[in-house]
Amino acid sequence: MHHVLVVGGCGFIGSHIVDSLLAQGHRVRVLDMRPEAFRPPLPGVDYVIGSFASEATLHEALQGVDAVVHTASITVPSTSNADPVADIQGNLVATVRMLRVMRQAGVRKLVFLSSGGTVYGIPTAEVVDESHPLAPISSYGIVKVAIEQYLHMEHRLHGLDYIALRLANPYGPRQGYNGIQGIIGNFLWKIAFGEPIEVWGDGSVVRDFIHVHDFAELCALAVKAPIIGCFNAGSGQGASVNEIVQAASQVANCRVRPIYKPGRSFDVPRVILDISRIKQAIGWAPRIPLIEGMRQSWDWIQEHQAIDNIA
Amino acid sequence: MHHVLVVGGCGFIGSHIVDSLLAQGHRVRVLDMRPEAFRPPLPGVDYVIGSFASEATLHEALQGVDAVVHTASITVPSTSNADPVADIQGNLVATVRMLRVMRQAGVRKLVFLSSGGTVYGIPTAEVVDESHPLAPISSYGIVKVAIEQYLHMEHRLHGLDYIALRLANPYGPRQGYNGIQGIIGNFLWKIAFGEPIEVWGDGSVVRDFIHVHDFAELCALAVKAPIIGCFNAGSGQGASVNEIVQAASQVANCRVRPIYKPGRSFDVPRVILDISRIKQAIGWAPRIPLIEGMRQSWDWIQEHQAIDNIA
Repeated sequence: MHHVLVVGGCGFIGSHIVDSLLAQGHRVRVLDMRPEAFRPPLPGVDYVIGSFASEATLHEALQGVDAVVHTASITVPSTSNADPVADIQGNLVATVRMLRVMRQAGVRKLVFLSSGGTVYGIPTAEVVDESHPLAPISSYGIVKVAIEQYLHMEHRLHGLDYIALRLANPYGPRQGYNGIQGIIGNFLWKIAFGEPIEVWGDGSVVRDFIHVHDFAELCALAVKAPIIGCFNAGSGQGASVNEIVQAASQVANCRVRPIYKPGRSFDVPRVILDISRIKQAIGWAPRIPLIEGMRQSWDWIQEHQAIDNIA
Repeated sequence: MHHVLVVGGCGFIGSHIVDSLLAQGHRVRVLDMRPEAFRPPLPGVDYVIGSFASEATLHEALQGVDAVVHTASITVPSTSNADPVADIQGNLVATVRMLRVMRQAGVRKLVFLSSGGTVYGIPTAEVVDESHPLAPISSYGIVKVAIEQYLHMEHRLHGLDYIALRLANPYGPRQGYNGIQGIIGNFLWKIAFGEPIEVWGDGSVVRDFIHVHDFAELCALAVKAPIIGCFNAGSGQGASVNEIVQAASQVANCRVRPIYKPGRSFDVPRVILDISRIKQAIGWAPRIPLIEGMRQSWDWIQEHQAIDNIA
């Protein structure tokens, strides 16, 4: 059993990682700016409310911990380019400071959420493995690459055991409706609200979608896995935005007619991750098919919407 | 003719770039924190004294300019790891801010001094070309990679023409005696002062040394070259630290017995740059052989030492 600090543990992805860590028998502390949006605090979990950019808060949160899962980010790809300096300060500088505080606290295991969708830039291969050149075209991706490299340096110079998981596009229950990230969640919420769906470009953009349960299970396994380095973490399969629209129609049982808008300069046309490396390293594989996972999302939205309506 | 701003134009490398730009008929402005250490201000050159991290100073310095050569850095590899946050703030954040100011000022050409010795990390090839994975193990190298990637993004999103020159180990006249960077300059100064030479490790570390004249000529050519991207800029040949010690003995005409100290964790064992790409792109090639270049350094030190003695 490990005592694990999940930075950003009240977010969409973080909350599922907390669940998987508890299910795998770990003790869990969470550091986040605010409580979970959709659940009350979990019994048996310590919550520290604050910013991971505060060294004092980090020192407190790291007491007695022997591993960290770092899921926090102040930006998403579509917002990072508007203010790259804020992106660097809030993500890169804060994480590099966290590495120093972890060193001082003697915590030498870190699982970091990197980005399979942005670090490679525009892929030159049908399916992208970890040796693909790193050529991000968003500040978000540049900062993820730089953080991965600081982890590598911290490993070499100060013995940090790190696993950077280059996450594909996660979806599933508790994915919020923020309008800027996570097309499956956003599409399904809009359908539930009776709002039109917007598609950037012609819908041919292909992404690798992974159910958040599958990814959370991987993160919890990574905490105790004796492996080091960067690993793709996706489904290994691609789906176009138009296919997602169709699947959304199917699970919501209605006909969806998206509004097509101009493409965005920072969107890469196609990313499918080769996940052989992590499969071979720890025997993990994603299990939830896309249509089944989207049905779970839809059911959860229906349930949550109902609760909202009652409240 | 271009009107070129050389950021860091009073430094060792920058001052030679200014000379080459003038020799190739360009108009030159310099932005630096302080005047040149070894020469009075040059006639015909504008000097703006200040920091490139100040947006107001940058706006002033960019007036009427149509290209920038960015040579400034607040760190060297051996100092960057002591305070990576300061490295990120002083180099990465300041350069990303500069890109925005250049965009506002309509300046769309930039030659950036990157680092052939650090961006690749520990090379997996005898001679390293630009497709080698980027795996730096110093903050200095990580920041150089991140800057290159922001240049690439600025090119894609806002049409910046950039050339990042991954510079090998430069040496030559006006290389100061700071004890932390530039072993040829430091060795020759120490010999001139009658001080012992210190070697980190057993002297087998191999580097690619390029004469600063050759590199400055390349920078001046790059200002008008219609090429974009990252290019190695070295001699294409390797010399071990022990070979430098021998060559230093030869040019100084004395027997040098170095003091061997423990190796440093951030030093990579061997870096020789493949310079085919830049050769093919613009027909440039280095011309000054190592021993002849070191003789020039030695002569300059002798001359400068004499001036110091008189003063």
